Parts: sequence; structure tokens; C-alpha cells
Amino acid sequence: MEVLKKYNSELQQHLENAVAQKEPRQLYDPIKYILSLGGKRIRPALTLMVCDFFGTDFKKAMSAALAVELFHNFSLIHDDIMDNAPLRRGKRTVHEKWDVNTAILSGDAMLILAYRFFENYEPTMFHELAKLFSETALQVCEGQQLDMDFETRDDVTLVEYIQMIDHKTAVLLGAAMKMGAIVAEVSESDKDKIYQFGRNLGIAFQLQDDYLDVFGNPETFGKQVGGDIISNKKTFLYLMAVGEGTSAQAEELEHLFTINPKDPADKIATVKEIFLSSGAAEATQAEIEKFSHLAYSLLDEIDISEDKKILLRKFGKDLMERDV
Amino acid sequence: MEVLKKYNSELQQHLENAVAQKEPRQLYDPIKYILSLGGKRIRPALTLMVCDFFGTDFKKAMSAALAVELFHNFSLIHDDIMDNAPLRRGKRTVHEKWDVNTAILSGDAMLILAYRFFENYEPTMFHELAKLFSETALQVCEGQQLDMDFETRDDVTLVEYIQMIDHKTAVLLGAAMKMGAIVAEVSESDKDKIYQFGRNLGIAFQLQDDYLDVFGNPETFGKQVGGDIISNKKTFLYLMAVGEGTSAQAEELEHLFTINPKDPADKIATVKEIFLSSGAAEATQAEIEKFSHLAYSLLDEIDISEDKKILLRKFGKDLMERDV
Repeated sequence: MEVLKKYNSELQQHLENAVAQKEPRQLYDPIKYILSLGGKRIRPALTLMVCDFFGTDFKKAMSAALAVELFHNFSLIHDDIMDNAPLRRGKRTVHEKWDVNTAILSGDAMLILAYRFFENYEPTMFHELAKLFSETALQVCEGQQLDMDFETRDDVTLVEYIQMIDHKTAVLLGAAMKMGAIVAEVSESDKDKIYQFGRNLGIAFQLQDDYLDVFGNPETFGKQVGGDIISNKKTFLYLMAVGEGTSAQAEELEHLFTINPKDPADKIATVKEIFLSSGAAEATQAEIEKFSHLAYSLLDEIDISEDKKILLRKFGKDLMERDV
Repeated sequence: MEVLKKYNSELQQHLENAVAQKEPRQLYDPIKYILSLGGKRIRPALTLMVCDFFGTDFKKAMSAALAVELFHNFSLIHDDIMDNAPLRRGKRTVHEKWDVNTAILSGDAMLILAYRFFENYEPTMFHELAKLFSETALQVCEGQQLDMDFETRDDVTLVEYIQMIDHKTAVLLGAAMKMGAIVAEVSESDKDKIYQFGRNLGIAFQLQDDYLDVFGNPETFGKQVGGDIISNKKTFLYLMAVGEGTSAQAEELEHLFTINPKDPADKIATVKEIFLSSGAAEATQAEIEKFSHLAYSLLDEIDISEDKKILLRKFGKDLMERDV
């Protein structure tokens, strides 16, 4: 992403040095491995960018950025066990390459290592960063738990769904940005606003992800379009269609989300059609708009120069268009 | 244990309130469950006791004590998955009562919750406590990894074995005590000495545990005597006997530790005999003596009253005699 590019090489270099070659290797090799798989490093770059935009040398935010990226990768290792995922970024997941026990323990060590990066700040800043980090990390666990709970529930409300994506995804984006603001020592008000900017944008992003999973361009989406329909994942679109569609549409959807046809093309086409005719597609777009708008309106109030706001809006736009 | 009794009721009460009834229940119920299984609460009681002995109201150390106990229980949840253990304190383990995914995620949440307890201290103390906590937690992970590595290695040295039990068990005892000293704001020198007291005592305790597993009184040991021999666990006694015994003894031991007879009585008797005749039993006793002595000699140098030192020595004695 254009606006984050500036931070990437420095970040990459620090990440490579982040985990020293320590013994026992069976504990630390998986950590080095998952960090070597790449990824867009959006979260840590956001920490650096926000610090930079608030007028402080972004290198001062490097330890916080590394903590965020380590936490994110810790959660990937443990989530991949829970989802029984064989691949991560096209390579074998940690529990596949090693085993489940190694993935559990290396993940644990990675979470602790994340905390250690905050030790580089003086006590008051350490306290503030670690507190935000713990609060956020706990919410991410709660979000993951809600996501798992939802798989077997058929009474999930739209509000609960938003809460789930908020906790599982959005709070970490908000916290990553707020950490940059904490290191830059800006006002409490600006810290909160940049946090809410990131968080609301995160919710919009995740809803957009649900939307594009159905209506996206297969050439640019990056994942298999229709994947959520194939795996019967009850996303915002589904919940909206069941709630707002006719009872015939709801019944048909509920049936379709119990079957796993060998060739899913017909199922995908029917579901898509119901998402459109029930008004769910439009309503989801409106919801995305609502959260994006909320994010941008908060941005307006932050005490930084207009050119920085333009860049933050550009970042939001790139994120939503998945041009990342 | 007599000397720790004073703290138990208050500790128990705080532990019960430690994890509020929060949603999602699937995440927090397992945490409440494992805490409800009891246990001797030695580690948190040590934190309170040391704070008390250094002349500070032990209630000030309550949050640190709770963090230690939550961490310990987090490690039990994840270790039980790795060891495939069906029971913990006579009740079903978390991954048995719920499932592995729940045990992974609830464990993660519990580790984060442990960190949160330190937030109750002002920034400088928070920094010091959290730093010690992270360092210790990482060592515990390393110890657990070494323990798993040793299962498939046949070239483990005595030094490596001591390092493993030090990291897996002893450092947390040392850290639990040091946290009490940190809260009591004593000198750096006293903090270090109480830490090394707990750590060396912890090593002695773990070696004693290995010893009693073979030579203990079945009525008082609390675990199945001979359990390590039955499960072919290469403890200090084994490594010492293989290293110091005759080559015939070493060969016989190595063979015996590959078999799993239905009735293990003969195997246990033979192994016991070799542990004695090879001098391993005596050498292990000497090693226990060495670490206990080291612990007590550090105690002598600490700046507290003689009556407190007597109580700490009494604690050490009770711990070694498993009168806990």
C-alpha cells in the first residue's frame, strides 16, 4: 500500500532480527518460520505511520509495531490449529510442518515475546502500551471464541455479528494505530479518535471482505470468490438476508447453508440472487458506508495537518478496495 | 503448609472473584473451572508471604500473587493438552471436558488475564513485575519444550536436565517470591537473593520429586511410586545411573527403559536396585543437598529478622518433605 511503503523495509529488517537464534530450536524455529512467510505487515506499519503523522520519529514506535506483528502471528498460529488449516500464505501451517504441541507452545512463547517488546519503553509508556495490548488481545480471543460459537448457533443477531468482527479483527487495527499515537505522546482525545478511526475502518473492512467474498472480482479479490457460501459461513450478508428477506427466501437460504454439493456453482448462483433480491447486498453496502463514514468523521476532528488526513483517507480507500 | 496457611483464605476469596462472569462463557468457563479445582496455591502464597516477611502488608501483593496463580494454571491447561492428560487433580482436564480448541483459546486468555493483574500497580512497579513475569514465562515455555525434546533424545546431559527442571519449575518459584519482594520495595540485592533462594529450592524440590518417585513412601508421596520408571521417564536418577554405573548397568537400564511390561513390578525392582548399586541414588541425594544448601546460604544473607528466616527454612523443609 502506497502510504505504508515508507516503513516496510525498516520494519522487515527489524522483524528478521526480532527473534534471535535461541535455544531450544524447536520452540523458536516455528516463530522464525511464521514471520518468514511474509504478509502485508499492515498492522505494524499503521503503528509506525500514525507515530510519524503525529510528528514523532517513527523508529520510536518500532518496538510497539513489532509487538503488534508478533501478536498477530501468534493468533494466526493458534487459529490455524483451531481451524485445522493446512496452509498459511501458501506454505504449510506451523502445526502441519511441526505438530500441534509445537504450535501451541511456540504460539504461547510468541505472545510472551510480544509483551517483551514493550519493555523498551519507559515505565509510564510501557504501562499504557501493555494495558492497551492486553485489553485488545483479550478481545481478539473473545472474537475468535464468538466466531467459533456462531458456527453452531442459528440465532446469531446482526449486532452480535458486528461485535464478533469488531473483536476478532477491528480492535487490533485500532490498537495498532493508537500505539503509534501513544508513542508520539499526543492528547488523550487524539489517541481515542485515531483508535476509533482504525476500529470503525476495521469493521467496514471486514464487512467489505464478506461482501467481496460473494460479489468481488475473482481477479483481484485474492481469495476464492464464493468461499464463504461453499463453507456455509453465516456472514453479515446471510444474516441480513434471512432477517430481511421473505420467509421463502429465508427458508431457502437456511436449507442451502446445510448442504455441500460437489459442484457448488448452482448453490452460489442462487444464494447470490437471494442476497441481491432480499436487499441484503444493498443493506450490507449501506452498513459498510456507515462504518466508513464514522471513521472518516472522526478523522476530521484529529489535530493533524490536512495533508496527513488526506493520506489517512487514501489508506482507508486502499484498504477497502483491497489494493493492499 | 503451616507457614502459608495465613494467606490461604484471603487468596482463595480473591481467586474466586478474579475472573468475573464474562461473555463469551465458552471462553471464561474453563478458566473458572480450572481455578475451582483447587491445588495448594503454593506459588501465590509465596508472593504474599515474602511481601509480608519484608514488612509490607501482604494484601498489596495480592494482584501479583493472582497473576502468578493464573499463569501457573494457564500452563497446566496447555501442558495437559500436550501431555494428552485425561485428569487434573482427579477431575477432567479442560481439553477433555470441553475440547482442544477451547483449551487452547481459554489458556491464551488466561495468560493475558495474568498480565492484566499487574496493571493494578503504578507504572514503575508494573514495569518491574511484568518484565520479571515475561522473562519467567518464556523460561517456563523453554523448560516445557526441553522436557518434550528429551523424550526422544538419548544424549541428555545432567547439566541439561538441571536446566530443564530449573526452567520448567524452579524459576516460577523464584519469581513468585521475588514479586513479593518487589511489592515490598526492598533492595535489589535482597530481591535477587530471595529469587535465588526460591529458584535453588525449586531445583532441589524437583530432584527430590524424582527421587521420591522411586524411593518415596507410597502412603505420603501422593503420586504412584514407580510412575517415572513405568513411563520410561529419564530423570536425574536415570541419567546419573547410566553415566556413573558400570557399562552392564547402563546397558540394562537402557533396555529396561524401552519396554512396557504389563506387570511392571520386576522392572521397578531391578531399576531401583541399579539406582542404588550404581551410586545414582546417593549422588542424587547429594545433588539435592547441594541445591538446598545453596538456597539456605542465600537466605542467611537476606536482610530480615531471624524469626522470618526460621519460617523460611521451615517452609523449605516442609516443601522437601512434601508436607504441603
